[in-house]
Amino acid sequence: MTSIGIVSPQSMHFAEPLQLQSGATLADYTLVYETYGTLNAERSNAVLVCHALNASHHVAGYYLNDKGEKNIGWWDNMVGPGKPLDTDKFFVIGVNNLGSCFGSTGPMHTNPATGKPYGASFPVVTVEDWVDAQARLADRLGITQFAAVMGGSLGGMQALAWSLRYPERLRHCVVIASTPKLSAQNIAFNDVARQAILTDPDFHGGDFYAHGVVPKRGLRVARMIGHITYLSDDDMAEKFGRDLRAGKYQFDFGVDFEIESYLRYQGDKFSEYFDANTYLLITKALDYFDPAREHGGDLSKTLAHTQAQFLLVSFATDWRFAPPRSREMVQALVNNKRKVAYAEIDAPHGHDAFLLEDPRYLRTVRTYYEQVWQQLRKEAA
Amino acid sequence: MTSIGIVSPQSMHFAEPLQLQSGATLADYTLVYETYGTLNAERSNAVLVCHALNASHHVAGYYLNDKGEKNIGWWDNMVGPGKPLDTDKFFVIGVNNLGSCFGSTGPMHTNPATGKPYGASFPVVTVEDWVDAQARLADRLGITQFAAVMGGSLGGMQALAWSLRYPERLRHCVVIASTPKLSAQNIAFNDVARQAILTDPDFHGGDFYAHGVVPKRGLRVARMIGHITYLSDDDMAEKFGRDLRAGKYQFDFGVDFEIESYLRYQGDKFSEYFDANTYLLITKALDYFDPAREHGGDLSKTLAHTQAQFLLVSFATDWRFAPPRSREMVQALVNNKRKVAYAEIDAPHGHDAFLLEDPRYLRTVRTYYEQVWQQLRKEAA
Repeated sequence: MTSIGIVSPQSMHFAEPLQLQSGATLADYTLVYETYGTLNAERSNAVLVCHALNASHHVAGYYLNDKGEKNIGWWDNMVGPGKPLDTDKFFVIGVNNLGSCFGSTGPMHTNPATGKPYGASFPVVTVEDWVDAQARLADRLGITQFAAVMGGSLGGMQALAWSLRYPERLRHCVVIASTPKLSAQNIAFNDVARQAILTDPDFHGGDFYAHGVVPKRGLRVARMIGHITYLSDDDMAEKFGRDLRAGKYQFDFGVDFEIESYLRYQGDKFSEYFDANTYLLITKALDYFDPAREHGGDLSKTLAHTQAQFLLVSFATDWRFAPPRSREMVQALVNNKRKVAYAEIDAPHGHDAFLLEDPRYLRTVRTYYEQVWQQLRKEAA
Repeated sequence: MTSIGIVSPQSMHFAEPLQLQSGATLADYTLVYETYGTLNAERSNAVLVCHALNASHHVAGYYLNDKGEKNIGWWDNMVGPGKPLDTDKFFVIGVNNLGSCFGSTGPMHTNPATGKPYGASFPVVTVEDWVDAQARLADRLGITQFAAVMGGSLGGMQALAWSLRYPERLRHCVVIASTPKLSAQNIAFNDVARQAILTDPDFHGGDFYAHGVVPKRGLRVARMIGHITYLSDDDMAEKFGRDLRAGKYQFDFGVDFEIESYLRYQGDKFSEYFDANTYLLITKALDYFDPAREHGGDLSKTLAHTQAQFLLVSFATDWRFAPPRSREMVQALVNNKRKVAYAEIDAPHGHDAFLLEDPRYLRTVRTYYEQVWQQLRKEAA
């Protein structure tokens, strides 16, 4: 297994307006994306990889900066030559979502209607809006049907939305560490994070770009909250426990415990690069995702609209999107006699496990894609 | 069962300095407290009730404001005539802890050394410091030995600290929904809350009193985070689910979901009355509590120093201080051949359950105190 090596992002502009779920319209937009591997002659081996909250189109391979340091893709252990999603076989696309801060049109870009940054006026986008925008990219790349659409967490929601919105355009749907909808507790955590940003005096109602400031305090707290929910209680206990930075209590409000140091560092780092409006938009997309809503909450009825085959994976210690959320989807798919494979991985790393090296997890995904590949070869023969 | 009726707080000044765990000294201080019932001639029926994070000495009965509205004590369902802790039998004391914002000496009071409010210079106090201050109050009230010391959550830590620090001064120790130490995840939540306060520009390094402002934004976020951890996921799902305030998505960052409305309301209310320095101090006392620390983490060795009999109660859906934390204490007490009763209540309300009406829970405590009372009567006879 080797890395894809150095990769570079591409971008595509879409001049036709995008109708959004909210009723608003995005006049035009650009999507930034990366591709790995080669699209075959039948155009049948494309896999779309959807990203989660703070990730991007940079799924695999790496960029090199001026100092020769590697910026490695967020799912590089999953995607590459000889890796579970094997780029020697599949043509893999990573695409940055609308509203993001990594290149695709977002709140920091100029609103053509005003000549100023969108800021707070960037429309609230949904998982379904992202999928619609991705579908247009697929059109332009000449991909009528994906071999698979795949994602973890919020990315898994996009894969699921693909299976519902464009059922004939994907043969396989890979949904990892995800959920068909957020719980009240999930929404609560998102809302506290948003409140931290919205009430930061440097937020300026979302128009902080014009003020030359960044609501770092809010972003920092938001990230710290998020991070707690990504790790399991056990994993935190294992990694940090009650370890003290200086071996004894300081009796002040600086750093006492290693866990404090770790979280503050994560918060600081995040607040340096992430956009506050993007954070609001993405958490809102998470909150709103609930495809069963228009079917009276009946997930079986909802998933009757799918045509794909499914792989679902959940992680035992993920308390953000715990295994029962995946089992609910599996059950609803089984109720519809869909082909579905499901693995529940007993990993200690909480929600973050979907990004980490776990041999059982990676083997599960590898085996699934090997079958997808065999299927393609059989049909081509 | 009736209410104690109208109650009023008393206060006691302590002129002798209090040596704190940090090495600092509090020159003098005042404790505000309430008592209910009558101390018997033998002075043997006193029960000390210790409070948790945002509570106070106002345990039971009520105050009446100018409009005739009742301000009811935080454990009024537990303490009163004919109630589980029966004030017809016991003399109950509620005392406000040092550093609080409800009357006892705290950061908003004048530092005699400077003539200005303590603010950030109020010393970091520990559970053990509180217990030492409470012991002096007991001395002044002429109580050599309590029939019981009791508390829930942080209050339970105080009861446990009493059993270790003054083993001969309590016959029973009642520890509800508590833990012998915080986990990394518990500390993480506390630290995010503190960071929200510390980075609020209105905090002014703790000296906001002088600036005529209050760091409400930070307090609000802190309370919202705390509140999520007090409720169970199931309870939130049951009470709020994904219910929408206006029946449909708003596509903005106002209130969409009922859970958002609830949490923001709780945060707003809290930020109106709670002191930011107190919040920092109390969460730090929580983080620091770890009596086994000086015994190499061995809880059995630690609890060998107790002499009291114990009642412990935990709640199945409490994920803040989950039942295994109580079981750990029970096991350590059993290892020391201490008399210990333990109830694990299958209540759906998370950590907050210790404040709520649950017949099984209240019956458990009632039965325990009836035995304490029988013991006292037998000895008096």
